[in-house]
Amino acid sequence: MKTKLLIAALGFAIAGTASAQMKPEDAIKYRQAGYSFMSWNMGKLKGMLVDNPASYNKDQAAAAANAIAAIANSGMGALYVPGSDKGVGYKETRVKPELFTDKEGVGKVAIAFNKEANELAKVAAAGDAAALKAQFGKVGETCKGCHDKFRKDDK
Amino acid sequence: MKTKLLIAALGFAIAGTASAQMKPEDAIKYRQAGYSFMSWNMGKLKGMLVDNPASYNKDQAAAAANAIAAIANSGMGALYVPGSDKGVGYKETRVKPELFTDKEGVGKVAIAFNKEANELAKVAAAGDAAALKAQFGKVGETCKGCHDKFRKDDK
Repeated sequence: MKTKLLIAALGFAIAGTASAQMKPEDAIKYRQAGYSFMSWNMGKLKGMLVDNPASYNKDQAAAAANAIAAIANSGMGALYVPGSDKGVGYKETRVKPELFTDKEGVGKVAIAFNKEANELAKVAAAGDAAALKAQFGKVGETCKGCHDKFRKDDK
Repeated sequence: MKTKLLIAALGFAIAGTASAQMKPEDAIKYRQAGYSFMSWNMGKLKGMLVDNPASYNKDQAAAAANAIAAIANSGMGALYVPGSDKGVGYKETRVKPELFTDKEGVGKVAIAFNKEANELAKVAAAGDAAALKAQFGKVGETCKGCHDKFRKDDK
């Protein structure tokens, strides 16, 4: 877990090295892809934990939680390359300029999300739907915590 | 592993139920997001295993492999909803009509990819770069196996 948190935190450092050559529009595409795919999996969990509990399936819930955790652990910070503060990937980026300047604030939301996402995978594997619903809520709060601070609202 | 293969295979069955209400354009977006995010992680692995072996990092390689495996295990077959054989998600879908008719062929490529992707995560965790490079090649072949059969070439 500590290692995973470290990787997530380091994600932002990595941006300076390996991915520095990446085109801003590609970096924006890949991060939009990661968030979009996590949102599909959050939606599946909402479906089976909130909207229609009768549809809860342990294996499918664990698969969704694992996808969210693995994406959270993949060092997406590396995708916030210089020049990707503006521009169009799959669509226009909604990132706020603060994400590129407020390193401490970014680290806080990144580590909080990463911690809860990894806990989500752990709880999902245990198969207790009520516990998973509670942890799903905690993950959602960390998503919102970052969106409120570093993502512009849709126009 | 068996369970994971089963989930992947069942992904296509799931399309008939939970995700039937999903708009085709959303389903196309989510599957494009999944493939796009996997390609970012395959690119990271290529960078540290093929292009610049000096940049190999066990934790980053494992994180990339885990993201690929978790996405492979997430039941993306559910995203091939009726009506998503044509249309625009983040971009126009390149899926061939055969994917919606050749259930046996689809099952074969899906299970082959899923098997090698899970093996990728296992090998990456062990930390042997040479073994990971070999497994990375096997995963790439299963990607190509599906692309050749079920994805149209770029225009």
